[in-house]
Amino acid sequence: MNATFERPVRIRFSHCDPAGIVFFPQYLVMTNALVEDWFNEGLHVDYAHMIAQRRVGLPIVKLECEFSRPSQMGETITLTLSVNAIGRRSIGIDVVGHCNGETRFRAKQVLVTTSFESGKSIDIPTDIASALATFAPQPEAIEAHRS
Amino acid sequence: MNATFERPVRIRFSHCDPAGIVFFPQYLVMTNALVEDWFNEGLHVDYAHMIAQRRVGLPIVKLECEFSRPSQMGETITLTLSVNAIGRRSIGIDVVGHCNGETRFRAKQVLVTTSFESGKSIDIPTDIASALATFAPQPEAIEAHRS
Amino acid sequence: MNATFERPVRIRFSHCDPAGIVFFPQYLVMTNALVEDWFNEGLHVDYAHMIAQRRVGLPIVKLECEFSRPSQMGETITLTLSVNAIGRRSIGIDVVGHCNGETRFRAKQVLVTTSFESGKSIDIPTDIASALATFAPQPEAIEAHRS
Amino acid sequence: MNATFERPVRIRFSHCDPAGIVFFPQYLVMTNALVEDWFNEGLHVDYAHMIAQRRVGLPIVKLECEFSRPSQMGETITLTLSVNAIGRRSIGIDVVGHCNGETRFRAKQVLVTTSFESGKSIDIPTDIASALATFAPQPEAIEAHRS
Repeated sequence: MNATFERPVRIRFSHCDPAGIVFFPQYLVMTNALVEDWFNEGLHVDYAHMIAQRRVGLPIVKLECEFSRPSQMGETITLTLSVNAIGRRSIGIDVVGHCNGETRFRAKQVLVTTSFESGKSIDIPTDIASALATFAPQPEAIEAHRS
Repeated sequence: MNATFERPVRIRFSHCDPAGIVFFPQYLVMTNALVEDWFNEGLHVDYAHMIAQRRVGLPIVKLECEFSRPSQMGETITLTLSVNAIGRRSIGIDVVGHCNGETRFRAKQVLVTTSFESGKSIDIPTDIASALATFAPQPEAIEAHRS
Repeated sequence: MNATFERPVRIRFSHCDPAGIVFFPQYLVMTNALVEDWFNEGLHVDYAHMIAQRRVGLPIVKLECEFSRPSQMGETITLTLSVNAIGRRSIGIDVVGHCNGETRFRAKQVLVTTSFESGKSIDIPTDIASALATFAPQPEAIEAHRS
Repeated sequence: MNATFERPVRIRFSHCDPAGIVFFPQYLVMTNALVEDWFNEGLHVDYAHMIAQRRVGLPIVKLECEFSRPSQMGETITLTLSVNAIGRRSIGIDVVGHCNGETRFRAKQVLVTTSFESGKSIDIPTDIASALATFAPQPEAIEAHRS
């Protein structure tokens, strides 16, 4: 099985809406922070340096989410990231949020390595490509994903 | 063709990220505001009253987005909402954001009418169901959507 | 009396917290948008162009707010901006939010014209300085402000 | 000297604006989260339970901030909270954000204990009042604050 990256996130007052549950765009702010942590701590690629100095970004081009159960203020959600595809210029990730044995949401995202200077996609830089190897989806996982 | 609901939205400094383009969760804050305007001005159902007094909400259970081109601060994006499905307890909508003849993003969302008291889905209230009729997808649209 | 700049803002679901009222940092997102509109429509200085092409920003260095009454989802707040001071490198503004004859909040902000390239304050560009003249505080207003 | 409560906060992509520095309302989202952590971990009062079950909130009525130096994505800011006043129905706090020996911002906030049911201020509940004792400003601190 391929490696996953996991982080807890506390549901804050500021994440919640008048129904007292997470306002869904806030889940995507959380998955964005998870990708940052994954780069810094899972891939050992300095995310802020990549953005600000190397001027390489990871805009999202495709997003699919399922929100199966609401999350309440004060809960701690575990976010688990895995890689489902690595292209020449894109990375496909899955994020699952769970709490108390329940899945709260799933997000599938396609991120494209992009130059801020040209505004165009670029090949995944080699240091990032090799760091990604640990998280590369295994053949059987790819099979399962395709079927 | 079924009715659509359209509103312009100005891209603000606060929507943009260090790359100077819309941070993608902000698009979903915009589509949420569009649904509010649609209820108030398209369906003539008072959204704030529905939430705060009737205690009926519209949590999202499914979301699919494509972000095809970035949007810059200062641009005005036209958001167009149409209905692709009406269930007993759910409404399927499509939102397209375009600017200068270009599609910037598409979002497909499934919203479920939910009681804040029970936290459970409820049948679409009858006033909302009849207001939705104008926006109901036409048979041919449903065909196209299915194929 | 000096000129003021006024815009309505609708309180959205996304502005509100689990108590169903505006989450206070959202008021400051609103005042930031008001400054944008004031530049574009009141001063006739293109705000997005100023930020993205001229690389001049208006970071805030001082902020004082009073939140006197809560605002509810669905309300329309009128925001009124006036200038209380114009320095060589700074602009002092007052923003008042009111609704139904009630003051909801007041914010006093000091904005400093800053170069994004150097990260340092710069003299207010001459086109902006002359546009500001219409909004310049009158001597009696300055007196009242000082006392 | 009275007790303080301290937490680090990482500056995220989502906190930053097109100038690549923290968008100032985000600092106030951070101070709100700090107050949550202080209640949970410093005062041992369950914040989410206070909001959702006891229906007691802490709306802010007064805010004064100074933003002395910008903060960049990737930095870790240390936030330090101290109490400058305890009233019958209000708590006055100071928050300082510093990084690399530099003060980035200071915020002084007055929070009022409020019933969500009545929308009115209430006396600080006794469990919270006694938990606050550890953080009560010392007479000399009050003197310094007044002068």
